[in-house]
Amino acid sequence: MNIVETPVPFPRIAIIGPGLLGGSIALALRERSPQTVVTMWARRSDAVAAAEKIAHFASTEIGDVVADADLVILCVPIGAMRALAKALAPFLKPSALVTDVGSVKAPVVSELAPVLGSQFIGSHPMAGSEQAGLEAARADLFQNAACLVTPDSSDPVATDTVSAFWTALGCRVFSLSPAGHDQAVAWVSHLPHLTAAALVDLVATKNADALRLCGNGFRDTTRVAAGPAEMWTGIALANREPLQTAVEAMIEKLGEIAKLLAANDPDAMNRFLSAAQCAREQL
Amino acid sequence: MNIVETPVPFPRIAIIGPGLLGGSIALALRERSPQTVVTMWARRSDAVAAAEKIAHFASTEIGDVVADADLVILCVPIGAMRALAKALAPFLKPSALVTDVGSVKAPVVSELAPVLGSQFIGSHPMAGSEQAGLEAARADLFQNAACLVTPDSSDPVATDTVSAFWTALGCRVFSLSPAGHDQAVAWVSHLPHLTAAALVDLVATKNADALRLCGNGFRDTTRVAAGPAEMWTGIALANREPLQTAVEAMIEKLGEIAKLLAANDPDAMNRFLSAAQCAREQL
Repeated sequence: MNIVETPVPFPRIAIIGPGLLGGSIALALRERSPQTVVTMWARRSDAVAAAEKIAHFASTEIGDVVADADLVILCVPIGAMRALAKALAPFLKPSALVTDVGSVKAPVVSELAPVLGSQFIGSHPMAGSEQAGLEAARADLFQNAACLVTPDSSDPVATDTVSAFWTALGCRVFSLSPAGHDQAVAWVSHLPHLTAAALVDLVATKNADALRLCGNGFRDTTRVAAGPAEMWTGIALANREPLQTAVEAMIEKLGEIAKLLAANDPDAMNRFLSAAQCAREQL
Repeated sequence: MNIVETPVPFPRIAIIGPGLLGGSIALALRERSPQTVVTMWARRSDAVAAAEKIAHFASTEIGDVVADADLVILCVPIGAMRALAKALAPFLKPSALVTDVGSVKAPVVSELAPVLGSQFIGSHPMAGSEQAGLEAARADLFQNAACLVTPDSSDPVATDTVSAFWTALGCRVFSLSPAGHDQAVAWVSHLPHLTAAALVDLVATKNADALRLCGNGFRDTTRVAAGPAEMWTGIALANREPLQTAVEAMIEKLGEIAKLLAANDPDAMNRFLSAAQCAREQL
């Protein structure tokens, strides 16, 4: 079988922010598309030194980093995106596209569209981990990960080109509206994060001794809660309306489960757990 | 460094039930203590045929399986233990000990103590997986797993010997009262299972399309929900009082989180997520 790899559709790519995702994009490009010129921006000069090891050029001067780029990727916390978009906009080539890796899309699109116009197309590669920073970056982070591209008023050709970029990095690309994205990730990412954090916080408070007994089940169920608190605070609050709906639905579902326990009803409990088992096995 | 392995303190061991745990004990003994004679009981004759491949002797006749055993291990669902204990009791050597691998201890101890007296000491090796059955059995299943031994009116020497058996299989052994055990596992095992099942059931109901987008976070957070529904129904209902307390505490905690979202308060949300991050990193 011949595997035809999608080529990276941009000759020059600027990565804004040398964290886990920015660093992993640089490493993936070096491995999959060594002819692509990668530039990186970092806020601090010690981070520039680290970025220089994986990019062709790195600097704290954002104009120098984006001036020749065909694609600019914002890989910073969502709260920092607007100021950086404003800072880089005057240096962009008219043909350049800008995307991001933020975990929430409607607020990001509504903040960046006025600054970057139709040059901006939001993306969300769902490939993080509980680790953070350039040290944790890996060339294969995007392999088989879902990447959600969220065109709004964006040009369809530009959207296709950004999608092709993520495909070239190994992602399975899906297209959703920004609001549809935020609904979906509230359920499959943000609610699971808050639930994991609630579980670990609860056990630490109510029965801390039990933590030394925990097995792989507890470890897996709560792994994401070790993710960077500040980043997740920004994500949760930026997506607070869909997330509040999801948290309230979870409270209701747990209320139903408490009733099943109180009723001591094996048939009803088995129906609930069988439905969950079946849904989980289909993943 | 010389690693001194704990020897298996029983020359003959009978395993009642050839599932994931029973099969894994047999495989672990064959690897770590080939001189130990292992017998296995199975309900069905096709299961006896499979058990014969990993034990020295297997049968559907429980008397033949336990007659010469120095340790008998009940590896069946908790609902089936009492009837099997009654069936095997008349064949036990007076010096034999009996333990089990059930996930709930107070109900098991109160059911088996009248049948087996001080010959019974409850155990709970916390080494399952979402898989089940002999096909999933592994010799290293117990390596580094916590095993909770729950002496009640049991003889201290017998308790030490059962503990030494689990240590010989690679477990980290802890001793708790049956009630203390049930409290602890309600928090670190049973609540996480119900929470994972609630999450996957909720997403399948509310936004099934989002399931195809899910990343490793959702997969890990919900992995345990793929465990056998019938077994988990038995566990949840046998431990329903401590578990109801835990589910209600989880509902209260999620209610606090919903308030943090509604208040859009980054400092309070960050305090909550930082505490959870810190607790999870300490695991």
